[in-house]
Amino acid sequence: MRPLVVQKYGGTSVGSIERIQEVARRVARTASEGNRVIAVVSAMSGETDRLLGLARGLSPRPTARESDVVVASGEQVSAALLSIALHERGVKACSFLGHQIRIHTDDAHGRARITAIDGDRLCGFLDGGDGVAVVAGFQGVNPAGDITTLGRGGSDTTAVAVAAATSADVCEIYTDVDGVYTTDPRICPSARKLERISYDEMLELASLGAKVLQIRSVEFAKRYGVRVHVRTSFAEDEGTWVVPEESTMEDVLVSGVAYDRDQAKITLTRVPDRPGLAARLFSPIAQQGIVVDMIIQNVGLDGSTDLTFTVPRADTDKALEIASEVSREVGAGAARSEGDITKVSVVGLGMRNHAGVAAQVFETLGREGINIQMISTSEIKVSVVIDAKYTELAVRVLHDKLVGDGGATT
Amino acid sequence: MRPLVVQKYGGTSVGSIERIQEVARRVARTASEGNRVIAVVSAMSGETDRLLGLARGLSPRPTARESDVVVASGEQVSAALLSIALHERGVKACSFLGHQIRIHTDDAHGRARITAIDGDRLCGFLDGGDGVAVVAGFQGVNPAGDITTLGRGGSDTTAVAVAAATSADVCEIYTDVDGVYTTDPRICPSARKLERISYDEMLELASLGAKVLQIRSVEFAKRYGVRVHVRTSFAEDEGTWVVPEESTMEDVLVSGVAYDRDQAKITLTRVPDRPGLAARLFSPIAQQGIVVDMIIQNVGLDGSTDLTFTVPRADTDKALEIASEVSREVGAGAARSEGDITKVSVVGLGMRNHAGVAAQVFETLGREGINIQMISTSEIKVSVVIDAKYTELAVRVLHDKLVGDGGATT
Repeated sequence: MRPLVVQKYGGTSVGSIERIQEVARRVARTASEGNRVIAVVSAMSGETDRLLGLARGLSPRPTARESDVVVASGEQVSAALLSIALHERGVKACSFLGHQIRIHTDDAHGRARITAIDGDRLCGFLDGGDGVAVVAGFQGVNPAGDITTLGRGGSDTTAVAVAAATSADVCEIYTDVDGVYTTDPRICPSARKLERISYDEMLELASLGAKVLQIRSVEFAKRYGVRVHVRTSFAEDEGTWVVPEESTMEDVLVSGVAYDRDQAKITLTRVPDRPGLAARLFSPIAQQGIVVDMIIQNVGLDGSTDLTFTVPRADTDKALEIASEVSREVGAGAARSEGDITKVSVVGLGMRNHAGVAAQVFETLGREGINIQMISTSEIKVSVVIDAKYTELAVRVLHDKLVGDGGATT
Repeated sequence: MRPLVVQKYGGTSVGSIERIQEVARRVARTASEGNRVIAVVSAMSGETDRLLGLARGLSPRPTARESDVVVASGEQVSAALLSIALHERGVKACSFLGHQIRIHTDDAHGRARITAIDGDRLCGFLDGGDGVAVVAGFQGVNPAGDITTLGRGGSDTTAVAVAAATSADVCEIYTDVDGVYTTDPRICPSARKLERISYDEMLELASLGAKVLQIRSVEFAKRYGVRVHVRTSFAEDEGTWVVPEESTMEDVLVSGVAYDRDQAKITLTRVPDRPGLAARLFSPIAQQGIVVDMIIQNVGLDGSTDLTFTVPRADTDKALEIASEVSREVGAGAARSEGDITKVSVVGLGMRNHAGVAAQVFETLGREGINIQMISTSEIKVSVVIDAKYTELAVRVLHDKLVGDGGATT
């Protein structure tokens, strides 16, 4: 059986007629090298925003079902355009939309989760010798047959899920960066491209704002063992492989430093310290679909507590509204929000065996006079919330201290 | 059972956010008057051309299957946007794409014919109390499940076919003109709006370039007896009803004067007069999907003939190529094309019982010194091909002579 390669091209890669032709060239070459190829495409860059703009021109909160119908058209168009470009190069190709290859999802319009893909349909097509399958990313159908979309970056998840469903040999994610970096090169000149990274490290980096891969795509890749290769469509260089954990990976203490400016902090003061209060606050927040990231609670001497948590900045108003209501009900002080914060995180498999990393983080930031507002740790990361104005400084000093030129090793 | 109204809104009617809001207002009012409503929409004006432009930027002849996937997205977007606008007015609504209500068509991408519609699905939705059904016009699916489109003006056909499949009480076609006129008001100031017109007259007018309704939609309406009301979305006035023939309709000799600048004439000279030659020419032309309109053959004294026929102007090159090849094979003179022609036609049920109309047409044109190049007649029309530069003059004099202020009556 010929190797099966899934290639995902993001919005910038298909952002113009010329770029689509360039993608067609690359896809055609991959096919001519003896591979079966499935190309997954995003909407042309700017298109999703244009379409959302139309919907929002009609309603501040467009119906979720219909919004999905509108925005899914972007990937529909680019998939067909890439097929046309391939035909023009003499390569047979066929576009497939979410409903045509039964990319089944749940009902959560705008952020649906893929539940199943009819991989046999795609494999049958590829084995039938009809050329390249071009799949519209980002979209699926719910059990009722309605179009759903997977949320920003969802085409990554489509690609990885398609790779899993077809047992592809590799899933190449073509993007406008050439791989995963130890930190953001725009603010830290010593940032290096990683050759390999484990799923778990990538999950922490993705969720912390590295923005190279949608987090769900990494979860999918981890669950099904899909080998993901993140690389640029603008050059031939190897990018970064996201792969199952390898024994040598723990030798590197810290793989990367990530930051996320897109969070806001909400604080409730003088909360009576009674059982059940957290549930009373966080249940309605979860019901609104708001993902709470960090939560900190301090019990004071008078038996009341201060409660602080972070949410995506876009959800600040909704979360603050709920917090204020709960605050009134339980007789706490006023709830207030603060958006001027950044979460900075250091990530590395090596931390599992070494307790000193958190201390090094605190020490390094303290030396620069950067106050730490919140702390959260996991097995392989340390995150801190700091004043947004220190973002670049914090990233630079942490990177230089903990990643350095070759990475701190254990 | 509440009355069922199908309303079709063309590209101009949904051409902007404001216009979509206006359409939503009208749909909402129709629903609030106690009707069940199905709205069928075209793509926003200019959108189909923009999408085709993308496809043609990649290939001079984009794959038909993929072109359809590209352009069908236009109606997908406008259907969802109208649903959003309706929700914003507090009216429940749901968009439906071709594959979702199983608008089955044949395989002819770019000009597919509707073969069946799952009217039960739509009726079930309407009777379920979930509000207005908004159907994407112009699109369907072929037996393989691929997206097909119905050709320019195809949303008219979608609307009439949906009306037929759901046994709707009326199919309202909202367009940027306020009805069907006795001729083009832009070139003939005395043109009048018709209150009623029979399917057969409308068929002749539509096929002759009146461009108010796609011809297939009228064929559909005739076959299933759908009452069609052509009207403008920019005012409340009644438009023109296209209805089954009524007994009084034959009293009007000529209902309208139409013209079509969009044809070209192809002539083969010195064709040997042998049986089977016409088939040898017109079979390959038909196989290319080119619709030949008028055919004229004159046998000369030397046993050879001149053969002239008309085709849509867009197909001139393809048809000329075929004609030239056949010409060489049979030893005829060179084939040549001429695009600078117009077909002018007078149409009326009253002609069935009155032979004098053709003579009046020739006489009227002759008096103005307009030479007639080709003639074709049917039971209810007389068509002539003339030099394009006389178009406006010919239409005016024929209209004034044969339609006049109140229409020539028998």
